[in-house]
Amino acid sequence: MLPYISEFIGTALLIILGCGVVANVSLEKSGMKGAGSIQITIAWGLAVMVPAFVFGEASGASFNPALTLALAIDGSFPWEQVGGYIAAQLAGAFVGACIVYLLFKGQFDSTSDPDAKLGVFATSPSVKNMWLNFFSEFVGTFILVFAIKGISNVSGIAMGVDKLFVFGIIVAIGMSLGGLTGYAINPARDLGPRLAHAVLPIKDKGSSHFDYGLIVPIFGPFLGAIAAVLVYGLIPW
Amino acid sequence: MLPYISEFIGTALLIILGCGVVANVSLEKSGMKGAGSIQITIAWGLAVMVPAFVFGEASGASFNPALTLALAIDGSFPWEQVGGYIAAQLAGAFVGACIVYLLFKGQFDSTSDPDAKLGVFATSPSVKNMWLNFFSEFVGTFILVFAIKGISNVSGIAMGVDKLFVFGIIVAIGMSLGGLTGYAINPARDLGPRLAHAVLPIKDKGSSHFDYGLIVPIFGPFLGAIAAVLVYGLIPW
Amino acid sequence: MLPYISEFIGTALLIILGCGVVANVSLEKSGMKGAGSIQITIAWGLAVMVPAFVFGEASGASFNPALTLALAIDGSFPWEQVGGYIAAQLAGAFVGACIVYLLFKGQFDSTSDPDAKLGVFATSPSVKNMWLNFFSEFVGTFILVFAIKGISNVSGIAMGVDKLFVFGIIVAIGMSLGGLTGYAINPARDLGPRLAHAVLPIKDKGSSHFDYGLIVPIFGPFLGAIAAVLVYGLIPW
Amino acid sequence: MLPYISEFIGTALLIILGCGVVANVSLEKSGMKGAGSIQITIAWGLAVMVPAFVFGEASGASFNPALTLALAIDGSFPWEQVGGYIAAQLAGAFVGACIVYLLFKGQFDSTSDPDAKLGVFATSPSVKNMWLNFFSEFVGTFILVFAIKGISNVSGIAMGVDKLFVFGIIVAIGMSLGGLTGYAINPARDLGPRLAHAVLPIKDKGSSHFDYGLIVPIFGPFLGAIAAVLVYGLIPW
Repeated sequence: MLPYISEFIGTALLIILGCGVVANVSLEKSGMKGAGSIQITIAWGLAVMVPAFVFGEASGASFNPALTLALAIDGSFPWEQVGGYIAAQLAGAFVGACIVYLLFKGQFDSTSDPDAKLGVFATSPSVKNMWLNFFSEFVGTFILVFAIKGISNVSGIAMGVDKLFVFGIIVAIGMSLGGLTGYAINPARDLGPRLAHAVLPIKDKGSSHFDYGLIVPIFGPFLGAIAAVLVYGLIPW
Repeated sequence: MLPYISEFIGTALLIILGCGVVANVSLEKSGMKGAGSIQITIAWGLAVMVPAFVFGEASGASFNPALTLALAIDGSFPWEQVGGYIAAQLAGAFVGACIVYLLFKGQFDSTSDPDAKLGVFATSPSVKNMWLNFFSEFVGTFILVFAIKGISNVSGIAMGVDKLFVFGIIVAIGMSLGGLTGYAINPARDLGPRLAHAVLPIKDKGSSHFDYGLIVPIFGPFLGAIAAVLVYGLIPW
Repeated sequence: MLPYISEFIGTALLIILGCGVVANVSLEKSGMKGAGSIQITIAWGLAVMVPAFVFGEASGASFNPALTLALAIDGSFPWEQVGGYIAAQLAGAFVGACIVYLLFKGQFDSTSDPDAKLGVFATSPSVKNMWLNFFSEFVGTFILVFAIKGISNVSGIAMGVDKLFVFGIIVAIGMSLGGLTGYAINPARDLGPRLAHAVLPIKDKGSSHFDYGLIVPIFGPFLGAIAAVLVYGLIPW
Repeated sequence: MLPYISEFIGTALLIILGCGVVANVSLEKSGMKGAGSIQITIAWGLAVMVPAFVFGEASGASFNPALTLALAIDGSFPWEQVGGYIAAQLAGAFVGACIVYLLFKGQFDSTSDPDAKLGVFATSPSVKNMWLNFFSEFVGTFILVFAIKGISNVSGIAMGVDKLFVFGIIVAIGMSLGGLTGYAINPARDLGPRLAHAVLPIKDKGSSHFDYGLIVPIFGPFLGAIAAVLVYGLIPW
């Protein structure tokens, strides 16, 4: 049970910190409103790093269905655990998003813009174009998974430094490509909170935009992650 | 005596750097006024990290009554030292806040807003709601203590990297949740400087708001920390 | 083949993340427009660090013709691979820039300023003065190569920490000197994307400014890198 | 000779990067003008870290007369080298400042504010008060030297991580206290560039303010550093 518990709690923590920073800098009456993308991208990096060192040995700290599936295709993760991992990740992301809503209830109630409210939970493109948006998520997740695979190339890496690299990877993708589609790069990170947005009694909320959410931040990450392990495997290391 | 001296000096240093950055970016005539929450959150992370590596081996570098108590409940800290640690932490926080006042005396005298002056010393909520404010401090401290416990899961961690993780934890909580209640997540960090605010001859100061300060930033951290070690202990590591 | 493949993919990744962040914070309709130089400089540091840990053992992770040549002059890199490395680096930089164009196609189409568009690909001086601009690139690359050489002075350095130092070097040069000429400090980083700018069908693009690009960001880095290994070699370590 | 050469080059590099960032974000026509104190404080941290890992084993990487003298008083540095070290540090700081002037010559010529020009070279108080300004430099340098001493408390620290801690110390002091007197915390860092300001043919420059510069940023750091080693020595480690 430990791996599934770890993925559940770890993904919940990831979302509390990750969706938390978006709420923290974008909702009305938050004391840190307006801090912008530097705070968002650094905090998302930490949102992955913190549960990664807590749960790294317990479950591998995937927290990401696209990574989990790609590692199974790669042969470095057991197929029979894929389903359970993804279920735990989605459930953790949903619960984490509900906690963020409760934490920021006063700020949500003070915010009138429905896009800002949805933006706390789920990603959206800055210029809508399904193929380019898909490409953005594909490339972002490709870099994520390719770089995570590449950490193992540092032979004899000092324990713990690998988690600093994970932080660096997430911040890099966010800072360099985040303005395109909000870098979901993780189907659970987007779908879990989007479902929470759909069911929570958020005041004056708008559409949860599943028309976008069920396509781009699902298929982009899955295909990008799979491509990454395939390309990585083709390199004659 | 070494552990108590360490907690005293370490917490004083924590507050000089931590309350220092708030003064540095928010008081009139400071050369860094307006730098905002990115500087505040990074500096608070360093404010914990610096005394943590100096005093980590001497006292465990707790600097936080909620952490100290929770570790005692957890069985990883001796009960007979809890009282002395908490007294040293509170005294250190009080002294640190007095040094910040003296350092920024010219800036305090140039600032007219009493809320900005109190904000250097103590936390306050962005949207007042006792239960939600309590929940914010509870969750923030839960994450703090849960993640600190989790550092030990990284077996064979390179010495010193644990302190970088501590930095990351503090910055994560601040960047993601800090806009709610100012993330006290430490009863000494809030109460010691708040007492200093009450007794120091600060020009045109307002209320020290003990009505808030004796409840939310005390009980939220204590209960969040205790919950963290209990939940951590329930996980079948 | 592995070293050349590594330099090709690594430099492409460097440019996707590096030119990516410039697009991300400067093009119209990007969700992170306006984040400014802190995000740019941190992201460029990560843009080097991420491929550096992935490809460090495969190729040495040079990604920079000036560094490659200087290390050959220094005697620490085989002369017969210099040509192949530089070709791989230039090709990688060109391909990376094309991917950035495709990723940000919607944003490029929404941006009217031709200087902003060129700025995504290639560097330009803030005050035009060929000798001072050359000096800026010379000094920046001198520091880069001198500091990279100097990492080996830390005897027994924990594996992986060297990559954190590389990150620090790049960020340092960018934050301290980047406002002069945009710190190319790497002929491939500037020339590859500039060629891409020249051939890609970018809407309403202006000059690719090869008059500047074939001189300053080529000769400055090459001569600065060579000077660095010579000075480094003169120090009686 | 190696230690003196190291202190000379290291301090020059420190000043190129450190005074460089101030020029980079504050002079007219710099491409990064306006980036503010977050960039300044991070870059100063890197300005110390980069030469620290290059020259750490060659000279101890002091780069600071106050630190050098305090370590001699502490018994951890040979008295007979103190004079040579301080001379090398001052000379390096002077040369570094001249290089910054040359690099940013076009930007200096475009800037009319004489305070902004002096600010690139030397520190000044945000609220003038000799005793409080002295106290600011005293406390900042106390923390610097106390924390540097304290790094050795982390037994078995992974090589290289100590340099990351040095980075953290410098950034902490800058972010938390830098708005008071600009955190010289190093007599060479202030006096060397101030002398350069006095002798360089800077267009429309104002006073070099030796009335302030020969007192506060000299005596504050020296006395703060000495107090730090004394207090550190009193703790019953």
